[in-house]
Amino acid sequence: MKVYEFEGFPNPARIRIALAEKNLADQVEFVQIDVPEIEHQTAAFLEKNPSGAVPVLELDDGTTISECTAITEYLDHVAGEPTLTGRTPQERAVISMMQRRAEAGVLDAVSTYFHHATPGLGPDIEGYQCAEWGDHQRDRALAGMAYLDGVLAARPYLAGDAFSVADITAFIGLGFADFAKIEIPEEYGYLAAWRERVAARPSIAA
Amino acid sequence: MKVYEFEGFPNPARIRIALAEKNLADQVEFVQIDVPEIEHQTAAFLEKNPSGAVPVLELDDGTTISECTAITEYLDHVAGEPTLTGRTPQERAVISMMQRRAEAGVLDAVSTYFHHATPGLGPDIEGYQCAEWGDHQRDRALAGMAYLDGVLAARPYLAGDAFSVADITAFIGLGFADFAKIEIPEEYGYLAAWRERVAARPSIAA
Repeated sequence: MKVYEFEGFPNPARIRIALAEKNLADQVEFVQIDVPEIEHQTAAFLEKNPSGAVPVLELDDGTTISECTAITEYLDHVAGEPTLTGRTPQERAVISMMQRRAEAGVLDAVSTYFHHATPGLGPDIEGYQCAEWGDHQRDRALAGMAYLDGVLAARPYLAGDAFSVADITAFIGLGFADFAKIEIPEEYGYLAAWRERVAARPSIAA
Repeated sequence: MKVYEFEGFPNPARIRIALAEKNLADQVEFVQIDVPEIEHQTAAFLEKNPSGAVPVLELDDGTTISECTAITEYLDHVAGEPTLTGRTPQERAVISMMQRRAEAGVLDAVSTYFHHATPGLGPDIEGYQCAEWGDHQRDRALAGMAYLDGVLAARPYLAGDAFSVADITAFIGLGFADFAKIEIPEEYGYLAAWRERVAARPSIAA
């Protein structure tokens, strides 16, 4: 398997964590796509992912999978028991729901703020920006964090007793918020305690 | 099982189709949430889905599942073989990727256009609107349709030879585009032919 990524970017980091959780990192060849040099817009890369985004997983038969949720789903099912996306239909549904809430409510909101309300990756890469919408997404991200804090008041991880892909998404969302200089309110104590717990996992701390 | 919905709305329609495909419709009690009367913002409904959106699936043990992808995933795994979300890890990953592309590139883009660049559901329900962003999403939806047309030039359904949840999402996205008066370009002939094929399925035509 190959993973096309740009190391340090939020979405590739989600897959790095999933690979580490599944003990699959040494079975993957990482290929860097130099986004600041606009390599993600070359014809060769757009062939692999028409949306031009990293990461992309390329299987040995040449099939390319993009979208982090699809890549994580795949990795979770090719090695060992599915531990990141759930075993039973009900577990799977709760994890999928919480993953989507963390994604839409925090990670995507922070990303839109960064790419629209700040210079983002610079004028050559950003193209169209809508500052008003970007600013609004900052408030949406804060509301998303408030929601996650409430969830974590009642359970140790976002989808229940076990760490899952929902936690990966939210953790990366908070890291992106730091990078984009969105201050995470201190009163979200459950969120802060969860974040420390997640940061200490070998898949992240190592 | 109960499904909280508002009949005729795009996201509830996705679940109606999934239920029909899985022959599960008669095992579900449908409960109407009167969105025009703002029933989706009552404390009782926000308890079931904090984002206030329909549909919500309520299991017999009281667990509530929102987000259409999570609901469809659940329905696909509680009855029969999983036919909408894939059987093997690779099938699952391709379907999940294509579903997300149809969702982000068409259905969500059309929805944002409708709720931001048109009066949408009216001032009492819409609250904040960003017309500039909404207008931009119309172009994004058209680009999404162009992409899907290209995919369908090479295969009969969005994720390959078989109908899947990706097709449900895209089909509902096109219906929402009609409703929002986004004209689907006539030159997308593969998309038009696929749409007719999907519309003729018993789960939709009946």
